Amino acid sequence: MPAQPIVVVNPNSNPEVTADLERGVAPLRFSGGPTIVCETLEGAPFAIETQTDVEAVTRPLAQRIAKGDAAAWIIACYSDPGLAVCRELAEVPVFGIGESGVLAALQRGDHVGVVALSRRAIPRHRRQQRMLGVERRIAGERALELTVAELVDETATWRRLKDVGHKLREEDGADVVVLGCAGMARYRRRLARELGLAVIDPAQAAVVTALGAVALAEAEV
Amino acid sequence: MPAQPIVVVNPNSNPEVTADLERGVAPLRFSGGPTIVCETLEGAPFAIETQTDVEAVTRPLAQRIAKGDAAAWIIACYSDPGLAVCRELAEVPVFGIGESGVLAALQRGDHVGVVALSRRAIPRHRRQQRMLGVERRIAGERALELTVAELVDETATWRRLKDVGHKLREEDGADVVVLGCAGMARYRRRLARELGLAVIDPAQAAVVTALGAVALAEAEV
Amino acid sequence: MPAQPIVVVNPNSNPEVTADLERGVAPLRFSGGPTIVCETLEGAPFAIETQTDVEAVTRPLAQRIAKGDAAAWIIACYSDPGLAVCRELAEVPVFGIGESGVLAALQRGDHVGVVALSRRAIPRHRRQQRMLGVERRIAGERALELTVAELVDETATWRRLKDVGHKLREEDGADVVVLGCAGMARYRRRLARELGLAVIDPAQAAVVTALGAVALAEAEV
Amino acid sequence: MPAQPIVVVNPNSNPEVTADLERGVAPLRFSGGPTIVCETLEGAPFAIETQTDVEAVTRPLAQRIAKGDAAAWIIACYSDPGLAVCRELAEVPVFGIGESGVLAALQRGDHVGVVALSRRAIPRHRRQQRMLGVERRIAGERALELTVAELVDETATWRRLKDVGHKLREEDGADVVVLGCAGMARYRRRLARELGLAVIDPAQAAVVTALGAVALAEAEV
Amino acid sequence: MPAQPIVVVNPNSNPEVTADLERGVAPLRFSGGPTIVCETLEGAPFAIETQTDVEAVTRPLAQRIAKGDAAAWIIACYSDPGLAVCRELAEVPVFGIGESGVLAALQRGDHVGVVALSRRAIPRHRRQQRMLGVERRIAGERALELTVAELVDETATWRRLKDVGHKLREEDGADVVVLGCAGMARYRRRLARELGLAVIDPAQAAVVTALGAVALAEAEV
Amino acid sequence: MPAQPIVVVNPNSNPEVTADLERGVAPLRFSGGPTIVCETLEGAPFAIETQTDVEAVTRPLAQRIAKGDAAAWIIACYSDPGLAVCRELAEVPVFGIGESGVLAALQRGDHVGVVALSRRAIPRHRRQQRMLGVERRIAGERALELTVAELVDETATWRRLKDVGHKLREEDGADVVVLGCAGMARYRRRLARELGLAVIDPAQAAVVTALGAVALAEAEV
Repeated sequence: MPAQPIVVVNPNSNPEVTADLERGVAPLRFSGGPTIVCETLEGAPFAIETQTDVEAVTRPLAQRIAKGDAAAWIIACYSDPGLAVCRELAEVPVFGIGESGVLAALQRGDHVGVVALSRRAIPRHRRQQRMLGVERRIAGERALELTVAELVDETATWRRLKDVGHKLREEDGADVVVLGCAGMARYRRRLARELGLAVIDPAQAAVVTALGAVALAEAEV
Repeated sequence: MPAQPIVVVNPNSNPEVTADLERGVAPLRFSGGPTIVCETLEGAPFAIETQTDVEAVTRPLAQRIAKGDAAAWIIACYSDPGLAVCRELAEVPVFGIGESGVLAALQRGDHVGVVALSRRAIPRHRRQQRMLGVERRIAGERALELTVAELVDETATWRRLKDVGHKLREEDGADVVVLGCAGMARYRRRLARELGLAVIDPAQAAVVTALGAVALAEAEV
Repeated sequence: MPAQPIVVVNPNSNPEVTADLERGVAPLRFSGGPTIVCETLEGAPFAIETQTDVEAVTRPLAQRIAKGDAAAWIIACYSDPGLAVCRELAEVPVFGIGESGVLAALQRGDHVGVVALSRRAIPRHRRQQRMLGVERRIAGERALELTVAELVDETATWRRLKDVGHKLREEDGADVVVLGCAGMARYRRRLARELGLAVIDPAQAAVVTALGAVALAEAEV
Repeated sequence: MPAQPIVVVNPNSNPEVTADLERGVAPLRFSGGPTIVCETLEGAPFAIETQTDVEAVTRPLAQRIAKGDAAAWIIACYSDPGLAVCRELAEVPVFGIGESGVLAALQRGDHVGVVALSRRAIPRHRRQQRMLGVERRIAGERALELTVAELVDETATWRRLKDVGHKLREEDGADVVVLGCAGMARYRRRLARELGLAVIDPAQAAVVTALGAVALAEAEV
Repeated sequence: MPAQPIVVVNPNSNPEVTADLERGVAPLRFSGGPTIVCETLEGAPFAIETQTDVEAVTRPLAQRIAKGDAAAWIIACYSDPGLAVCRELAEVPVFGIGESGVLAALQRGDHVGVVALSRRAIPRHRRQQRMLGVERRIAGERALELTVAELVDETATWRRLKDVGHKLREEDGADVVVLGCAGMARYRRRLARELGLAVIDPAQAAVVTALGAVALAEAEV
Repeated sequence: MPAQPIVVVNPNSNPEVTADLERGVAPLRFSGGPTIVCETLEGAPFAIETQTDVEAVTRPLAQRIAKGDAAAWIIACYSDPGLAVCRELAEVPVFGIGESGVLAALQRGDHVGVVALSRRAIPRHRRQQRMLGVERRIAGERALELTVAELVDETATWRRLKDVGHKLREEDGADVVVLGCAGMARYRRRLARELGLAVIDPAQAAVVTALGAVALAEAEV
């Protein structure tokens, strides 16, 4: 295994999200496997809600990656800020959790439902899905539309998540669900049980992909 | 980690292919991670070249999976024989290396070149790509068209692989390459170096995806 | 006309379905035209509901076709089980009623509504539509979800069919409807009158295509 | 069978084309089946090469159909002139040979090669393929680019046809070929033998579809 | 600037529509810029509702353009009647307001909602969107379904327009709206304010495109 | 007309490009129309070749737009850097020349050929075309691959441009060409004459679209 870790960069400054990333990657830390480090990007906004927020973190992400030392990088925001530039700059693979999340879902169901944090993210995600070329596999996307107060309230969040999940399944015909944001891994399994469907946490999906890329980078096969 | 292994089923009876699968998954065996077992499907044809071969292994695969005990299954043939039925039967995730290989490639380049063993596989792969919904990301597919004699001759195989790889890159504009068959992991890194592009071994890609699914299956996050 | 008939194989063992196929093809038997024979596949399951059922009939279908003597073959199940392998094996054309049904509908309306027997067939049909490359022409698919008791009750079936047909037309915007299963030809015309739209029985559509292929197979033009 | 015939309208005034249509439909005339009549549209241009030619025949076609008496109509020009308006006006089904030809081809191969008479028809056909929603199944289209003198010379036509057919197969990867114009049925079988692929004459394909529609129009099933 | 004007042809004989076109283009008449002339096509039907109406104006449009003298032509009907033939005949650019309207909308939002006059236009517009290749960007299309009496009643029209606009935004997720017919420019701004979205009048969009084409036609850059 | 101008921002610091933009927009300055101002973005790189360059100008563009006063903004780089964020920030319309160029081309031909400055821009443009949803209308993209020395040499540039233009037309089947970069308006008309096809300068296309948006912004119709 390489000396360098897989570095998961939370490009917002909300420590709750980094903590959730930590919880989410814990089951993917294998002794003998690549090290996984989660970090918060310095100077990032508290949340990435707008395109302005996306762009605000693009260059800091690029700078982090340019000066950093990692076996692979993960950009832990569902909008994949800076993915193209980081790929250009890094000599190692870079993964965006939006891309990884959707592509993982395609292997667990036929019609993907996406849970967005807020409605205004949906056109951005739609552009991403078309860019990725998989828009025909998307059953629909629905927003939690939680206030900040509700988002820290696990009960309120879960209530909305359950409601949105059921609508994606019953009304939109989704047979697999992606959590369209970082920081919700702790609801993944609960929602999967509630819906009887596979639920993908995108940051976990990206870490899995990175694990493979890193383990194979130096292998002769 | 679960007691059961990830089982990689080679659905042909060519021991060379199972041996190559073993070599390919070796770097993905982490001491603290899921166990990975490669096996040859009993009674399978020597190679899966035709649709008849595909169908000949579908029910044996389904039977293997129905009676087996695994944390996840991998069908190690690029045509993904029996993938839908095995997914229906298994209570654990099932991955096809064709699906996993192409989806992994989408995260390493924009335009995917596919290396087929023989020309007659190409329409079958094209159907698969459309079914998967990603056909617009495929730059082209080219066949090695090796005789059986050449296929066991590593020098002859490498010569053709190099030639096909360069055509995919220079003429078709591929910026990532998928080996469109099981059993060629040993050429992966060499071809990547030769072309200066990421090269995906599809069986490795599927094992990576399975690793994640298995590690997360019992996790509360 | 060739000595051999067009053989319509009902790949389930429900004699009601074969009887309906007989009724459905009757208007396509022209005195100077190809002979049409309907038969039940030996050892088939009573209904093809799951992917397991699909695969259970694939090899028997291939064997039937390999040893048979026909001018053209029709696989009379909307999921087109074994279509690719039968095409590979037969020296004469093979048609699947799913493919034929949808392609016929494209010539009778712009937006195709599909009536499925059960909800679990829908993802399978969606894969088929993408594989065929026509998914953008599908307005929607809705399931009858009849119990076995209701299915033999013509009044109950008709009630559901009417309801689903109206929903496809009014809510999904379908302007042509395909009966997404074999064995419902007897409702075709009634539903067409009810909705004021063309309704396609897929087995009839396939027999028509086969008629042409057979009549032209030996023609010098 | 209905008293009215299937009427195949050649919307150009070249009697050679009508004669070829006659030859082409001959094998589809079954003693107990629908009558098939081929006719030349009065006042039509000698050939339909330009969009101006297409439009010149649209209203005459609509008038012909409005005042005519047929069980089904076929517009025997690959550009499907007037198809939408004739469908609106007729109380019986109307088929365009362009649509029918391509859809028939989708059931005989995976990647369709189209033979155009002249290069300027190709963008028109591409619009038609997109409108039909099947453009991803087209391998390529190539033009014969014959002079009028060559077109009446069967040897010269055959030479070009063979050349274009081989290019569609070898360079574009077509595994089924459509003759993208009316009036070439006499080359269909010869080209199929030459290429070892199914070759579709679009007027025959449309007549076959019409045969079915007519035979089923009055059937209770 | 060229001596010839941009000619906007209203291909129906409703003087209200020509008057609305005049009102709509007024803000696009720049001193120093191309002259813009609106005219009514002689002998056109009162409204273009059916495909028969579309075809009825195609050849008159072609004749108008063939004998006319313009720097650019605009066909001011959302169904783009005669667009292909007029492009073939004219030596100057020809624009259809349907094409121009949708393409303009793609630059003002991500998901386009279309307001149709009547339900029967919707399949025609869907064919046009597929032909144009942009159908994935369409959120939905809804019809005003106004009676002739209501259409001349501005209050009644506005009431329906508002209702349809809100449904496109709230139920279909449109974030930009196109008025899918000529003659409604006078509602454009009001609807934009009501919905808080950009609203495109397609005739204005086409005139803008023509302005550019004309101004650049003689420029050396 | 509004007091504020249309502001065309050249997001690189090459004065040659700004000068070419000035030349290109000159024919679009109407005495009674909106004012058009071309400016160079402060602190921009000399050329935008890499994704790093794209991102380097995104935030400066956003800042320029946030503090500026314009009736509409144009981002004059074919890669549309910062388009989404500028649209979010500006209260007036923002256009990217890549989007505008391709959409204008769709109205002048069926199959679009794109001239890129360098090969490394092509995957970036392909992502843009998919995001825009028009990738099926692209015939191909080819790069000039000029050295810096050649790019300032008009004869050398023209030689390559001619060569690439002919290949797009003859080999890729393009019937309209877009100059896939800012700063080449001076070759537009020459190339159009050489190829006998419409050639689109994307900055001109965007200014035209902006002209319309600005003129209509305050109009009641």
